[in-house]
Amino acid sequence: MMMESMEGLTDEVKKHRKPDYGITPLLVNRWSPRAMTGEKIDDGELMALFEAARWAPSAFNGQLWRFIYAKRDTRHWDRIFALLGEWNQNWCRNAAVLVVIVTRKLFEYNDKPSRTCAFDCGAAWENLALEGTARGLVVHGMSGFGYERAREELGIPEKFGVMAMCAIGRRAPKDALPEDMQEKEFPKGRRPLEEIVMEGKFRS
Amino acid sequence: MMMESMEGLTDEVKKHRKPDYGITPLLVNRWSPRAMTGEKIDDGELMALFEAARWAPSAFNGQLWRFIYAKRDTRHWDRIFALLGEWNQNWCRNAAVLVVIVTRKLFEYNDKPSRTCAFDCGAAWENLALEGTARGLVVHGMSGFGYERAREELGIPEKFGVMAMCAIGRRAPKDALPEDMQEKEFPKGRRPLEEIVMEGKFRS
Repeated sequence: MMMESMEGLTDEVKKHRKPDYGITPLLVNRWSPRAMTGEKIDDGELMALFEAARWAPSAFNGQLWRFIYAKRDTRHWDRIFALLGEWNQNWCRNAAVLVVIVTRKLFEYNDKPSRTCAFDCGAAWENLALEGTARGLVVHGMSGFGYERAREELGIPEKFGVMAMCAIGRRAPKDALPEDMQEKEFPKGRRPLEEIVMEGKFRS
Repeated sequence: MMMESMEGLTDEVKKHRKPDYGITPLLVNRWSPRAMTGEKIDDGELMALFEAARWAPSAFNGQLWRFIYAKRDTRHWDRIFALLGEWNQNWCRNAAVLVVIVTRKLFEYNDKPSRTCAFDCGAAWENLALEGTARGLVVHGMSGFGYERAREELGIPEKFGVMAMCAIGRRAPKDALPEDMQEKEFPKGRRPLEEIVMEGKFRS
């Protein structure tokens, strides 16, 4: 079982992650590096990541997720980069693209609240992150930025909620990072399955 | 481009979905069938789906997602099945497993609200759905159930939020469904990429 569960994992992931069950390797191979080269990525590659997001499931197929991006060396970059906290700026300066992930909070067909809009948006985000991983890119999610400031600066209406940001870029060796970040540059483990799975009733 | 974007898609998906970009086929091949055989699935297979969920990204690696399941023909089944609306009961009676997906709303290390708990939980849910798809299973998310009733019946504390339910089972031909559901049994399309992707600023 252990052998099977390691099949298809990248060498760097194998060192840090021991799945209990053999699953689709891409799901375990995805992690959140920070070291990026500062190179651009081309529009086709970027759009393919959004294409991946697009096929996620959502309540009534509402697809309420939205993605606002800025590519480096464009007039949009500074505005979106400035939303980030200082710590995130220190590594995101080498990103190719920054994305603010947003969801409509109300269904479009009746303007009533969607209970699952944030949850569905997270499913779309995971598809984006997985497709980036499949292409060898860094895709790193963040909550360390100004949520209200994002709304103001990007003109996000009240019917929409700001969910998260992410950085996308080409991977670099970890010495491209400030020293204090280099020791964090590895695929993190997870809590045991028993802590998140419960039969029949809630158990804390 | 169109040829490349169809590579690796299943025949049933090819009929209904035309991605604009070639992406990891699993992401496009995932859809939400309802027709199931009523057969059980074994525990190893079920746990592999939760294993997939476990490797999703989350803020500060908090992993606040929780999964409460009931297998058919166990003493837990009726309690969780009864949470579903009548329409969902009509097809979920053939599921092997029903799952209530829950998230802690507060980080564990400081008991402060996580802005991304629902969003992160959705990422974990998507991994679960993708792994089920990779294994040829039905994994179908639902919001048509009693959210407050789930909290009461399953003893879910206030610090946790109920996100969604899902049904898991073995696929059956669509004539296993009530007649009105048979016409809905195909992979749905998505809105154009231009509607969900914006450069630099919000655009409605």
